[in-house]
Amino acid sequence: MTARKHPTGRRFAPSLEQHPPLRIAVVGYGYWGPNLVRNVIERPELELAALCERDDARAAAFLQKVPDVPVHADLDTVLADETIDAVLVATPPRTHHAIASAALSAGKHVLVEKPLARTVAEATDLVELATDNGLVLMPGHTFLYSPPVNKVRELIDHGKLGEVYFVTSSRMNLGKYQPDGVICDLAPHDISILLYLLDQPVTQVSASARSIFREHNPEVAFLTLTFASGVTANIQISWLAPRKVREMVIVGSKRMVQYDDTAADESVRVFDRGMEVEAPANFGEFQLSYRSGDIVVPRVEAAEPLSLELQDFARSIRTGVVPRSHAQLGLETVAVIEAAETSLRHNGEPVALAPALVRAAA
Amino acid sequence: MTARKHPTGRRFAPSLEQHPPLRIAVVGYGYWGPNLVRNVIERPELELAALCERDDARAAAFLQKVPDVPVHADLDTVLADETIDAVLVATPPRTHHAIASAALSAGKHVLVEKPLARTVAEATDLVELATDNGLVLMPGHTFLYSPPVNKVRELIDHGKLGEVYFVTSSRMNLGKYQPDGVICDLAPHDISILLYLLDQPVTQVSASARSIFREHNPEVAFLTLTFASGVTANIQISWLAPRKVREMVIVGSKRMVQYDDTAADESVRVFDRGMEVEAPANFGEFQLSYRSGDIVVPRVEAAEPLSLELQDFARSIRTGVVPRSHAQLGLETVAVIEAAETSLRHNGEPVALAPALVRAAA
Amino acid sequence: MTARKHPTGRRFAPSLEQHPPLRIAVVGYGYWGPNLVRNVIERPELELAALCERDDARAAAFLQKVPDVPVHADLDTVLADETIDAVLVATPPRTHHAIASAALSAGKHVLVEKPLARTVAEATDLVELATDNGLVLMPGHTFLYSPPVNKVRELIDHGKLGEVYFVTSSRMNLGKYQPDGVICDLAPHDISILLYLLDQPVTQVSASARSIFREHNPEVAFLTLTFASGVTANIQISWLAPRKVREMVIVGSKRMVQYDDTAADESVRVFDRGMEVEAPANFGEFQLSYRSGDIVVPRVEAAEPLSLELQDFARSIRTGVVPRSHAQLGLETVAVIEAAETSLRHNGEPVALAPALVRAAA
Amino acid sequence: MTARKHPTGRRFAPSLEQHPPLRIAVVGYGYWGPNLVRNVIERPELELAALCERDDARAAAFLQKVPDVPVHADLDTVLADETIDAVLVATPPRTHHAIASAALSAGKHVLVEKPLARTVAEATDLVELATDNGLVLMPGHTFLYSPPVNKVRELIDHGKLGEVYFVTSSRMNLGKYQPDGVICDLAPHDISILLYLLDQPVTQVSASARSIFREHNPEVAFLTLTFASGVTANIQISWLAPRKVREMVIVGSKRMVQYDDTAADESVRVFDRGMEVEAPANFGEFQLSYRSGDIVVPRVEAAEPLSLELQDFARSIRTGVVPRSHAQLGLETVAVIEAAETSLRHNGEPVALAPALVRAAA
Repeated sequence: MTARKHPTGRRFAPSLEQHPPLRIAVVGYGYWGPNLVRNVIERPELELAALCERDDARAAAFLQKVPDVPVHADLDTVLADETIDAVLVATPPRTHHAIASAALSAGKHVLVEKPLARTVAEATDLVELATDNGLVLMPGHTFLYSPPVNKVRELIDHGKLGEVYFVTSSRMNLGKYQPDGVICDLAPHDISILLYLLDQPVTQVSASARSIFREHNPEVAFLTLTFASGVTANIQISWLAPRKVREMVIVGSKRMVQYDDTAADESVRVFDRGMEVEAPANFGEFQLSYRSGDIVVPRVEAAEPLSLELQDFARSIRTGVVPRSHAQLGLETVAVIEAAETSLRHNGEPVALAPALVRAAA
Repeated sequence: MTARKHPTGRRFAPSLEQHPPLRIAVVGYGYWGPNLVRNVIERPELELAALCERDDARAAAFLQKVPDVPVHADLDTVLADETIDAVLVATPPRTHHAIASAALSAGKHVLVEKPLARTVAEATDLVELATDNGLVLMPGHTFLYSPPVNKVRELIDHGKLGEVYFVTSSRMNLGKYQPDGVICDLAPHDISILLYLLDQPVTQVSASARSIFREHNPEVAFLTLTFASGVTANIQISWLAPRKVREMVIVGSKRMVQYDDTAADESVRVFDRGMEVEAPANFGEFQLSYRSGDIVVPRVEAAEPLSLELQDFARSIRTGVVPRSHAQLGLETVAVIEAAETSLRHNGEPVALAPALVRAAA
Repeated sequence: MTARKHPTGRRFAPSLEQHPPLRIAVVGYGYWGPNLVRNVIERPELELAALCERDDARAAAFLQKVPDVPVHADLDTVLADETIDAVLVATPPRTHHAIASAALSAGKHVLVEKPLARTVAEATDLVELATDNGLVLMPGHTFLYSPPVNKVRELIDHGKLGEVYFVTSSRMNLGKYQPDGVICDLAPHDISILLYLLDQPVTQVSASARSIFREHNPEVAFLTLTFASGVTANIQISWLAPRKVREMVIVGSKRMVQYDDTAADESVRVFDRGMEVEAPANFGEFQLSYRSGDIVVPRVEAAEPLSLELQDFARSIRTGVVPRSHAQLGLETVAVIEAAETSLRHNGEPVALAPALVRAAA
Repeated sequence: MTARKHPTGRRFAPSLEQHPPLRIAVVGYGYWGPNLVRNVIERPELELAALCERDDARAAAFLQKVPDVPVHADLDTVLADETIDAVLVATPPRTHHAIASAALSAGKHVLVEKPLARTVAEATDLVELATDNGLVLMPGHTFLYSPPVNKVRELIDHGKLGEVYFVTSSRMNLGKYQPDGVICDLAPHDISILLYLLDQPVTQVSASARSIFREHNPEVAFLTLTFASGVTANIQISWLAPRKVREMVIVGSKRMVQYDDTAADESVRVFDRGMEVEAPANFGEFQLSYRSGDIVVPRVEAAEPLSLELQDFARSIRTGVVPRSHAQLGLETVAVIEAAETSLRHNGEPVALAPALVRAAA
């Protein structure tokens, strides 16, 4: 499957690839690793050079699909390979700091799955290490490359929503238990999307949660964020629902946007504010009417976000341009997660985020 | 339009009405009053005897529709009419205690629009007054008569959901500004529905909110409630959205229910938990699959909740049976509102509800 | 319930009613009659003067609701009442010609439920009788007053669709068996809507059908109409489906409109043609994309069509202006039904409509 | 990308592949060819041996993606390769007979894109050739491998629908103009699905159509089919709509199924017949209620149909078992297309299908 990057394969589109493809090592072949592998193989800018995976069964599963790419159990062996340009880290959050700092120290560009790290201290350390070594450090906030999210951002940037008043978000996964809890697992999606859409720091966080099966390991949580401008956001996350929910509502002074990632070709719906609505004259009119203006459902490109994310990673390495999912955004996301976990330990008390901290490297 | 209750009208169905209809006075002809008037006229157990309304324009609007029913500007005149059995109060929340206590003291049964009163002290006073005088006091929690809400309650009662884990609720109205704020205006719906569905008291409340147009008068608020069994509920309410949202998700150990009051004939959707879901093999399968089991969309009767509420009010007066929307539920709803407003004044700190208080009269 | 038109009632809005209300007799209190009665009572321009109904149970059901309006079993008695201005005929189609011609001959304006009559000969006779007597004859094509239908007509009239290419329509009812068959029962809706939307005559009709329970009494039928400009329309109708379907798709050179009468507040959806769509690169993109441009879901007023229809009837009687649902449109609808039934008897052969016939009175 | 079938690749799952993979040549790399190529590469039972494509640009596009598989402009060269087991034909319908018969004569198993051929004579010839040579001939009716279609078939087979009364189908594509017209392009999907679901021959066909841009090359067509048991089906197809429509409704005596291929995870909806529905009491209840029983939305597997089709092709070659999309079904589909085109030339007159013909090879 790597044949595309074979010398005979590249000759057909020389103009598209002025450089030889970046040689990539993927670390971890668990839930997300196979998606990284598939997309690395398909992207012309990248070449899969190695997999790092200690588990034999996973290594065998990989080799069944990609027999001509070497698998190493030992990270050092991978990092010692000077032909490797960059490392993609798809291991559990607890391990991100150790692996990413080793890779950065070895001079590799690094893309780390979300969250960038487990603590602000760890994340700050990674950001500094990357800056000091002139390397790209990119957190894998895949939703920042999702076409509907970018359609929403475009609507906000073009002033279509007016002033943003508040945001609600629900994210419920069919996913498996993670030892780091539901906030660390799911909230990075909502937080990174909100930081990207609103383009301003979070100033206060409060959280409540319920742990049903294991103490201090919540499966459902509710977060409330306050942003610098006063925008408030409420986030509902859980692992327990039998239906995937990924819905965000952004209400502005001019329009409201509903973004439902599970709604196929109608994932973004824009509600005009319309005119004042009269009280309905009877029960029939009441039931028939739930909005005050037109709805527009813009056409959104159908493209796989992870492929666009890897394209941006390659572009950032080649050109030095800051990637859309940049390290500072990853750090701020970690800071919000940390604050939410602090609030949780204090029975839901609001936790302020230090402005100095959250925009340290900005 | 009151002709139906005219003597010549009643002779056609004597068996349905063993008693002469209850004579009803409606107080207030603003947003909700016309709905009460229309339904009182249509219900065979009731007869519209008078309207109490001080505003001349509203009185004229009423008389245009119902010319042969007297309008009085003065409440005392209405309460002095011994032929009047019951009073429906559809005035602003601040006035509920004064009007309802006057009516109860005059020996009238009383239905008060939600919330029952502005404070626990006021609500407790009304409950005691009704008990002492042997009169029906009923808060107008209309959603307790909504067919979809009752379908959800039936599913919970029959064990279809298993153990309830958590609830999320979003309620966004196209409604007008109310001087008492969005929590007092909208949250009574969610709270009363949850008290009815879960049938257990709330033990803790926290709230955050944003006031955009007028200080200390929030237009958007987020509430988190904890119930006695540990069930947690997150409620998002606002006046600012240009689309009416009325969605509640109840996740249990066996099934999940999605109740969307704006979804016409598909307002209740039940999601089976199904089997464990495998990781999708590619982006296409990923996009295609958002659930793990079957969905059932039960047929729900199409009936106007307010009409059923008035029927229950009449039945309670006639038979002494406690109405579904009973005074204690109204009092608990007020206690949760009060706790949410306290939490709000303390920057979102959680507020515990005294068990003695919330089940005082139970 | 007629109190609104009582002298004391009218004084509150004299400017709205320069004339005393038109006195109306309703003939037939079966499936549709109660809706006519309710709306006559609610419309300020009309006053319910009498019901004509031979069935005792139905008469009693009416009197229970409207005790102070007389019921007559005999049509002649009603027609002899000189205070009655107009007659609404809600009896089976077979009886339309006899009742309507008697009423017109007695000098009454007439609104007849659809279809206007069972044959072109009958319908032509009624049209001539009305013209000769200077009376309003209006077929009750209620959908011509439906807000979504009028939104579609507005889109066509304003050129938003461009040239109309073709129309598809599905109409499935939960309704009861009618002795005249499903074409006579349901197709008048589709045909009258199409005549109204396209504003041109039908030139050819073919039909096929299936009779499952009774020979020659089809429960499901498919009609294909060709209009003068070449527009072609396919209509699917049935009584057998357990779900009400009322969907029409109008495809034009610029846009396409989907009109789904069961879709509550999203009954009209406008699809932009958009740009040429590239072949999707993989199964995921294929599944995600089903359209080439934006969708607009215009807000549509929530109003009861039958109330607007009665308003138009009153206006036509008062002003002489041709009503939207006019006699010629009713005649053309009958002509198409007749042609479809002819095609059916000839195993689906296409039947041409004589231009002279279909626009005779135009 | 063919590395998976390389010796070193196979050693990881020897039990899954008792035979070496079948060596496949794909003929044609236009709209559909790339999908075949991608799926051949991904299926373990198959190995892509060659592409046959005369167009240089398409050949280059292929080589860019699959550089190590040879491309030949000449069919004979491909057919002369004795290591090639089977040929997949993805060229225009006019060429199917010539290419498929050459391939069968050369001893290759053949999968031909739909329709199998342009005429019954051609299709019959191919069927006989395959039978005489003991080779698998399979038309590419991909929808027969679609999980929702198979869920519908399962419902019918298990008697859940009861007796099938009728079927309606709408299929509108965003597709490009095809020289063979919309019936030849789109109707094979509906016809093959219906033959598969109902498992009985078509006895009569009538068709009407409209050609807007080129004479005698319709872009929109309506077909009515009668099946042996009396089931009737109406099919609406077009190239002109800006929204992909793929909806089929199957109404039976017990239940109705709505199959919407664009509805992501809710593509199959089953409507219970439920109880008799009362006339709604008012406009509100009328609008709220569009069905008489519960709806069940069964979970359907998310799998790419084309991959399953190729798996079935391989299994048929290996085991001799008749594939689900078998040659006789392909022949019957061609017969219905031919009859529809005949009806069209005779202004929509119904055309009977000879029973001997349609089940000739059964």
